[in-house]
Amino acid sequence: MSEKRTELEELGEFGLIDHLTSMIKPTQASTIKGIGDDAAVIEAGEDYLLISTDMLMEGVHFDLSYTPLKHLGYKAVVVNLSDIYAMNGKPEQITVSLALSNRFSVEAMEELYFGIRAACKVYEVDLVGGDTTTSQSGLGISITAIGRVDKEKVTYRAGAKENELLVVSGDLGGAYMGLQVLEREKAVFKTAPTAQPDLSGNDYILERILKPEARKDVITLLGELDIKPTSMIDISDGLASEAIHLARASNLGVVIYEEKLPLDTVTITRAQEFNLDPTTCAMNGGEDYELLFTIPQGEFERIKGHPDLTVIGHMSDQAVGYQLVTRSGQQIGMKAQGWDALLRKDIG
Amino acid sequence: MSEKRTELEELGEFGLIDHLTSMIKPTQASTIKGIGDDAAVIEAGEDYLLISTDMLMEGVHFDLSYTPLKHLGYKAVVVNLSDIYAMNGKPEQITVSLALSNRFSVEAMEELYFGIRAACKVYEVDLVGGDTTTSQSGLGISITAIGRVDKEKVTYRAGAKENELLVVSGDLGGAYMGLQVLEREKAVFKTAPTAQPDLSGNDYILERILKPEARKDVITLLGELDIKPTSMIDISDGLASEAIHLARASNLGVVIYEEKLPLDTVTITRAQEFNLDPTTCAMNGGEDYELLFTIPQGEFERIKGHPDLTVIGHMSDQAVGYQLVTRSGQQIGMKAQGWDALLRKDIG
Repeated sequence: MSEKRTELEELGEFGLIDHLTSMIKPTQASTIKGIGDDAAVIEAGEDYLLISTDMLMEGVHFDLSYTPLKHLGYKAVVVNLSDIYAMNGKPEQITVSLALSNRFSVEAMEELYFGIRAACKVYEVDLVGGDTTTSQSGLGISITAIGRVDKEKVTYRAGAKENELLVVSGDLGGAYMGLQVLEREKAVFKTAPTAQPDLSGNDYILERILKPEARKDVITLLGELDIKPTSMIDISDGLASEAIHLARASNLGVVIYEEKLPLDTVTITRAQEFNLDPTTCAMNGGEDYELLFTIPQGEFERIKGHPDLTVIGHMSDQAVGYQLVTRSGQQIGMKAQGWDALLRKDIG
Repeated sequence: MSEKRTELEELGEFGLIDHLTSMIKPTQASTIKGIGDDAAVIEAGEDYLLISTDMLMEGVHFDLSYTPLKHLGYKAVVVNLSDIYAMNGKPEQITVSLALSNRFSVEAMEELYFGIRAACKVYEVDLVGGDTTTSQSGLGISITAIGRVDKEKVTYRAGAKENELLVVSGDLGGAYMGLQVLEREKAVFKTAPTAQPDLSGNDYILERILKPEARKDVITLLGELDIKPTSMIDISDGLASEAIHLARASNLGVVIYEEKLPLDTVTITRAQEFNLDPTTCAMNGGEDYELLFTIPQGEFERIKGHPDLTVIGHMSDQAVGYQLVTRSGQQIGMKAQGWDALLRKDIG
């Protein structure tokens, strides 16, 4: 759903959006949860339905100079499905609305839809509707994902308890480093159009940014391990931002340990090449689409040693705030410096 | 949902979209109806949930030089709710995604949301989520409406039977004439910026284009009259186009009588001023958001004389095709010359 929670001083005029929507209170009996989580929750008999929506704009969320349209179609679906998994649900349908300028050809749309259909197949969701229209410039994609969750299993951002463990799936910062590589090669291309792009050895991080996957497998795994997270969110705007979302929603603080952060070796190597701190990439880079969740300490044994799950910290009393404990033992206050689309005017 | 069905020869490259989506077959047990109706239909216990989505782009669907933002917000919600009513359902939630350039001010967004909230209040729906992001140029609005319908009452485009009556609510062509007045005054303004716009006497048709209402009242009325239409659609692209949708979906032909078309006197007067045929405005103008439906002949007595409902024709054998019978008794083949957004490049 990407409901923005960035502070007013950070967003300027866009802080207003939070203000405007926070005035809105649900009135329908069928609205179980409205604005403020990864997906809205709606009464549906034995289950809840989950609704999540995202809008991707050319030049803001993607740059077609290095994004193949089939990957874009795939990713546009996946980022929405990720929001459904973040509620511990199963996506079942999507709608796709496109706005496109006459710059796009039939073949371009075939490629985009190839990616959309591929994601539908992999994640077993139906494309059930949408809208296609012209735009004055560029491509806009708006996708709504519809999911389903057992009423007993729905997981919100709120719900974490003090001292519970903070767990993340996969590794972090890869998408951000992939983007840096793509931007570097784009800059090289602008000054030397005949140069061959140097993308070798970067397959993993390029896939992280261009064709990410949603962690359906992690939701399945949690079910098998009989773990229902006490709170959960997906990482679209960077770990710091999302950890703060969980803490705030649960009226808690959160402590993350730098030494625990899961980083891929390619991410680390490229970060060093770019003179970037890999920890910063993990904390504030975005678009990793991993799941971040909390579990009681008593469930640690069930996930211990699992290659896809890493305990990176714990929830604390609210007074502790949002802290990163560095390798040297220093505590640094975290800020939600997410990879917010509203701030990404420099990209593309 | 505005799933486009315009023919290839009319749409050129956009005919492809139909082709691409027609390859998609639902695989989920919870998908009752996918692409091809006003809304998707999803299993939800005792009821079905209905999902409809639309994307409105500045310069294509609206022109901010004469569209107040609060009306735009209101209309953007209403056109989606109209799709839910067209399934004989009740809308309960919406999500709103916005893409906006830095041209827009805080005050502008306040106005847009004022209209969105006003529509939510009037139609008793909850705003439950969405996304707000930047665009490189202009304003894009994507709204998804979620509705609910008794499984026994859901009404599709398909389902009409031969000889059933074709009924329309309200009157037609008003929105189209309202647009003509606005475009005329815009043209005058361009050549003589100090001239006062001449909008007097046009309140009704201006409201039809700028702040239309969805026919919630008609759905309530049909319930009270114990009428479940055998097929139904809302009129977004013009009567001819929508009547053909119903006929095609039901494998039938359709006959409409010119003399039966409900037209407001302001619509007729303005059409004559503009040297337009009022019948053409009703048949091919768009955005009236009235409901078009079929009922068995035996139910005629129940609606007879109701000021909001007009019998304008009947369903026929498929071999008859799609016919308009003029006042002089001539039969003219109807084409789906809807007010399709894909063809509206000249507007704005």
